[in-house]
Amino acid sequence: MADIPMIEHQVQEYLDKLAGKLPAPGGGSAAALAGALGAASGAMVASFTVGKKKYADVEEEIQGHLDAIEAIRGEMARLVDEDVTAYGAVGAAYGMPKGTEEEKAARTAAIQEALKAAAAVPMRLAEQCAALVEHLPPLLEKGNPNLVSDVGVAAKLAEAACECAWLNVEVNLAYIKDDDFTNHARAETESHLSQVREICHNVWHGTASAVTG
Amino acid sequence: MADIPMIEHQVQEYLDKLAGKLPAPGGGSAAALAGALGAASGAMVASFTVGKKKYADVEEEIQGHLDAIEAIRGEMARLVDEDVTAYGAVGAAYGMPKGTEEEKAARTAAIQEALKAAAAVPMRLAEQCAALVEHLPPLLEKGNPNLVSDVGVAAKLAEAACECAWLNVEVNLAYIKDDDFTNHARAETESHLSQVREICHNVWHGTASAVTG
Repeated sequence: MADIPMIEHQVQEYLDKLAGKLPAPGGGSAAALAGALGAASGAMVASFTVGKKKYADVEEEIQGHLDAIEAIRGEMARLVDEDVTAYGAVGAAYGMPKGTEEEKAARTAAIQEALKAAAAVPMRLAEQCAALVEHLPPLLEKGNPNLVSDVGVAAKLAEAACECAWLNVEVNLAYIKDDDFTNHARAETESHLSQVREICHNVWHGTASAVTG
Repeated sequence: MADIPMIEHQVQEYLDKLAGKLPAPGGGSAAALAGALGAASGAMVASFTVGKKKYADVEEEIQGHLDAIEAIRGEMARLVDEDVTAYGAVGAAYGMPKGTEEEKAARTAAIQEALKAAAAVPMRLAEQCAALVEHLPPLLEKGNPNLVSDVGVAAKLAEAACECAWLNVEVNLAYIKDDDFTNHARAETESHLSQVREICHNVWHGTASAVTG
């Protein structure tokens, strides 16, 4: 099977591989893709705002949000594959020989390093979700109102991706024996998640009010 | 540009088209894809449970959940494209001639029909989300516990997809002048959403407890 990146798979093939009995992609990759879908939905709102006479007075500001969101989307798209790579490295470390005491020690060290690298992927996803949602309130306020529901979709998907990122960080932390690392990872991820929840709550209510009148 | 279905696009291309200034795909298609990601995450848990000696006593039940989830995933994947088609039909109806009174009446009727068809897509997504989440509590309880976090990912993505479906139904209802249709659509979608919220709340807490010990 050709080793092409997940992000270059057809959508249907990606879904099939996610659903099947394959080591990867897993829920961490799916969460990153959900985040990228949220970022793309936000980018769409900005894309349909810039370049229109009607929104000329906010053009520069919205273009700035668009550029920032697109950078975040690129990072999230990379995490779709990096999660697969990191997860594979954990499996490889567990597969190391453990015949001698030396081998055992090397294997344990490799597992711990691989788990930290695997935790770092959802940590970055949570960070990117927090960065993404900061751009949503101005899009709701000043973006093309024909796409107001897409701001809501961006918020819901970013929030779901961040919740999943938190869960996937915790899954890895459970096996990491470095308290400094786990304390830092947990504090940082929880901070991102609480920021995401607060902003998304407000954006969602603003969107729903705009839609239901 | 070749008119290939969205589901056959590369993931990266799908994201690019979603983000760009194109009439489709929009937030409704992205929501259906998020739902399909949730379904695939749930299917993965079942796929890693069936066929293992350790879970032989629940094999038949989990296989039943897997089959049902895969059917739901197929339906959600179809909605990724049907939303694009339905949205295109609304645009086409708005583009109909309105020179004469007869043309105006025909255009208005076509717009109303197209809006109802467009509302039906997120209505079906909400219905499928509700069908999906019914399979998650048994996966949490009896599925392979190594994939417990993927049950949580399935729940979060299904819930986000259903919230977005509700929003996309409302966006269309705002322009539909048939009270019977709008009342029915709203009641049905709200019922699915409240079921999804309740089940996902419980599944998420169960997952989070299992992961954080």
